[in-house]
Amino acid sequence: MRKFAADKSRNLLAHTNNFTSVLQHPTASLYSSSSHSQKSQLLLRFLNTTAAPNPSSSESMASDYSSTPVKLDSINPKVLECEYAVRGEIVTLAQKLQEELKKNPGSHPFDEILYCNIGNPQSLGQQPITFFREVLALCDHPAILDKAETQGLFSADSIERAFQILDQIPGRATGAYSHSQGIKGLRDTIAAGIEARDGFPADPNDIFLTDGASPAVHMMMQLLIRSKNDGILCPIPQYPLYSASIALHGGTLVPYYLDEATGWGLEISDLKNQLETAKSRGISVRALVVINPGNPTGQVLAENNQQQIVDFCNKEGLVLLADEVYQENIYVPDKQFHSFKKVARSMGYGEKDISLVSFQSVSKGYYGECGKRGGYMEVTGFSPEIREQIYKVASVNLCSNISGQILASLVMNPPKVGDESYESYSAEKDAILSSLARRAKKLEEAFNGLEGVTCNRAEGAMYLFPRIQLPKKAIEAAKAVNTAPDAFYARRLLNATGIVVVPGSGFGQVPGTWHFRCTILPQEDRIPAIISRLTEFHKGFMDEFRD
Amino acid sequence: MRKFAADKSRNLLAHTNNFTSVLQHPTASLYSSSSHSQKSQLLLRFLNTTAAPNPSSSESMASDYSSTPVKLDSINPKVLECEYAVRGEIVTLAQKLQEELKKNPGSHPFDEILYCNIGNPQSLGQQPITFFREVLALCDHPAILDKAETQGLFSADSIERAFQILDQIPGRATGAYSHSQGIKGLRDTIAAGIEARDGFPADPNDIFLTDGASPAVHMMMQLLIRSKNDGILCPIPQYPLYSASIALHGGTLVPYYLDEATGWGLEISDLKNQLETAKSRGISVRALVVINPGNPTGQVLAENNQQQIVDFCNKEGLVLLADEVYQENIYVPDKQFHSFKKVARSMGYGEKDISLVSFQSVSKGYYGECGKRGGYMEVTGFSPEIREQIYKVASVNLCSNISGQILASLVMNPPKVGDESYESYSAEKDAILSSLARRAKKLEEAFNGLEGVTCNRAEGAMYLFPRIQLPKKAIEAAKAVNTAPDAFYARRLLNATGIVVVPGSGFGQVPGTWHFRCTILPQEDRIPAIISRLTEFHKGFMDEFRD
Repeated sequence: MRKFAADKSRNLLAHTNNFTSVLQHPTASLYSSSSHSQKSQLLLRFLNTTAAPNPSSSESMASDYSSTPVKLDSINPKVLECEYAVRGEIVTLAQKLQEELKKNPGSHPFDEILYCNIGNPQSLGQQPITFFREVLALCDHPAILDKAETQGLFSADSIERAFQILDQIPGRATGAYSHSQGIKGLRDTIAAGIEARDGFPADPNDIFLTDGASPAVHMMMQLLIRSKNDGILCPIPQYPLYSASIALHGGTLVPYYLDEATGWGLEISDLKNQLETAKSRGISVRALVVINPGNPTGQVLAENNQQQIVDFCNKEGLVLLADEVYQENIYVPDKQFHSFKKVARSMGYGEKDISLVSFQSVSKGYYGECGKRGGYMEVTGFSPEIREQIYKVASVNLCSNISGQILASLVMNPPKVGDESYESYSAEKDAILSSLARRAKKLEEAFNGLEGVTCNRAEGAMYLFPRIQLPKKAIEAAKAVNTAPDAFYARRLLNATGIVVVPGSGFGQVPGTWHFRCTILPQEDRIPAIISRLTEFHKGFMDEFRD
Repeated sequence: MRKFAADKSRNLLAHTNNFTSVLQHPTASLYSSSSHSQKSQLLLRFLNTTAAPNPSSSESMASDYSSTPVKLDSINPKVLECEYAVRGEIVTLAQKLQEELKKNPGSHPFDEILYCNIGNPQSLGQQPITFFREVLALCDHPAILDKAETQGLFSADSIERAFQILDQIPGRATGAYSHSQGIKGLRDTIAAGIEARDGFPADPNDIFLTDGASPAVHMMMQLLIRSKNDGILCPIPQYPLYSASIALHGGTLVPYYLDEATGWGLEISDLKNQLETAKSRGISVRALVVINPGNPTGQVLAENNQQQIVDFCNKEGLVLLADEVYQENIYVPDKQFHSFKKVARSMGYGEKDISLVSFQSVSKGYYGECGKRGGYMEVTGFSPEIREQIYKVASVNLCSNISGQILASLVMNPPKVGDESYESYSAEKDAILSSLARRAKKLEEAFNGLEGVTCNRAEGAMYLFPRIQLPKKAIEAAKAVNTAPDAFYARRLLNATGIVVVPGSGFGQVPGTWHFRCTILPQEDRIPAIISRLTEFHKGFMDEFRD
């Protein structure tokens, strides 16, 4: 399988511009921009089918706007090229079905839409950590901090923490723009949290607080990408933020394949091959993206594999962009999270030996505070003049939101043994993480029980990425409606069960293989029903299309 | 003056690439990218002088990083080109002085740094509106909504509003990613607020909630700019977010000059001239930016002037990008805010006659909630397929922060007569706005009392933009230290008084004229002391340099 992947990915470099390949090999299109108009036509067809009030009127609708100046062929082609499957056509269809269910209950063979397309735990019923929300509320309305009633409503340590945080904010002004890297006191707390995690020093001046991890990724892509000749090594399958950001910034995604047969392993020899192939085509590779724990693949890298990656980046002069937003989401006893910074420092690489950016977010972990848009990147191994450029770009957007900043400091410094909230905090945290582990296991077993489906275990993160051996008949039926086979499967699944998953083609996959990403986030008591809906649908699908 | 401005700006198109012009004519450099290395060297010199622990070691510091892969000449040149004076070198210097004051009180002839460089009201002591913060706190920690103590701590209508808002959020999940345009119920509220303001319909599907107005501006620039041959008409002086965003997206800023002699008036004939000149140079002008009320200039456009602008955009096929973030900040009885949408609809232009984007923010107005990063853009006059592209870009970043979204709905739907909070809310709002009006007047009079200084009144927004007639000797002294004369003045002012203002060269100005931007935001009881420090400094400066 690994060899097959490497051969295929080399092929990707060689031929593109093929209409059907756009959906099957999303990364292929990133090597070329010549299929824009075809892609946009295809995209439009889906969007109009699902979003326009009346599909057949979509053309006339467009023509009504004939006197407005902005046309599809006059916008930035990078915008046109960018794709983001996690919120793409499948979600637009799901929203349409949801509206229909609301207007006409009983109009579909299910009562509700189950959004398993996105890592959005609280949308599926996960409750926020009480201590974090107490502190946020008190910082939002500090006027109540001194009131007697507050003692009855909030834990003592949340009140104390709110006071501490307010003292760290100049003028206690939670409504003021902060330093563009974030409030210094909060960065001190985060740096201390990183030190406690890694056992190596962390510098608050290396921390850039951001509105979630996505803007941080964009900032680094913006810094590194000059043109289509600049490449970024990305895993395939990948979280499509990376392909979208590379497309928006006009660079080239250089794929390296994770090996499904070895639990989505990362082979350094493949990395080297991809790098050499890209170089031979005149692409200057600037950085390597590693997502650990993996998204959508759920693997947790072994420490010796991380060491190889660090060596590789050091030797090849690549910036290591480490997506570590799932660092708290580990579900198997035989794996542990190690930050790339810890690994690099353990190997003796210092600040000036490796350029490393670690991304963290409040959206994931056991906290799952997606709507708060908090996160940070820790930027190490860049010269002062480059750091000033990063700071300048951050300063154009002034600062990230203060509640998100506060929350980022809380997740890196939660209640400790002895704090009033510690027991309830620990109970909430453990309940969420142990339940996620059970859900991951149950869903994995269910997928592996389906005809023609194999699924690696989710060692971490929030997703399973099962592979489906689709019958030829299904592939032909998909072709007949100009749809990628995995998207065809996902649409049928949605229409039959209300379950929303993302087709593997949105993440990239070895050509000719088909997958989908399904989160492990539905509440535990719903899992059996989901599994039985899924099983029943799959059986019917196979019965319909079995060769 | 107007004629002079037009001639000069035409000149701007003709010659650039001049080292000294980079600081004097920031817009000039936007017509050319050939002075990157010179600019970055200059920028670096400032940054190192102020930020590095030891200025003389900055080169050796850089060389210590010789083995790291990212160098100043290998990053995206658009990042290098981008400048953002509001948080530029003057602020870096101010932060350095603040550190010194903290370490060695008495080390400078002032006790504190007064940040008049940025519209950040709460950093200077403005208090948030109580009702808004009550609702935010309750939405952050809904568990307390039903508790008896809560009645004693929060107003009844804030509790009711929090319940209403939570009901609008699917699953009451304030910690979930929302729809990428923002929570639908909040967009309904905002659309209703726009309708109440304008007397014309507003569609919630036209609203895109964003983390402040800046990301919304970036989104539109990203959509419209394909290359250096795409131009955006921007006022000079302008808020440097626009020049920065245009630079980052690789477009060309096409300047039109506001006429200082007529209170920063906007002449349509000048607009036409600039458009024609740009066209003749092969630049495809895509959009016109109007900032109303003006930043940094503080003027409020007359309705008939707005009508001319709408006609111009309609006729020339330009998207109208209307920065309306200061819509609540009007200080003179003879001027009123009219949204461009209201003006266009009043003229009979419908959805399909003009492409118009209105930007609004929770950072300004009487609320000044900069740290909350809330805002929206109302996008009208774009075809469904273009709207889908905007939605796609929004979806890559998932959504804006929920607290900011809630706050945006609150500022567009504040307490009404009869609500429990109405009186205290009104009192807080009126106190802030009437005080801002008094501060604007006092500072304007003070500036006009200084030798060689003239200052238009601040009809709106948060700034004064006085013009200084600098003596030749001062200009020569500035040249001798490779600094723009207005930056030279601003640095001297900071070093002598601790007052931070932004040199006019950061906003653009008619070549050969010198200005600075000063906010009207210091608390009212501080204004007399500020005026006397400013007056004393200015007198000393003129005594030192008078010709």
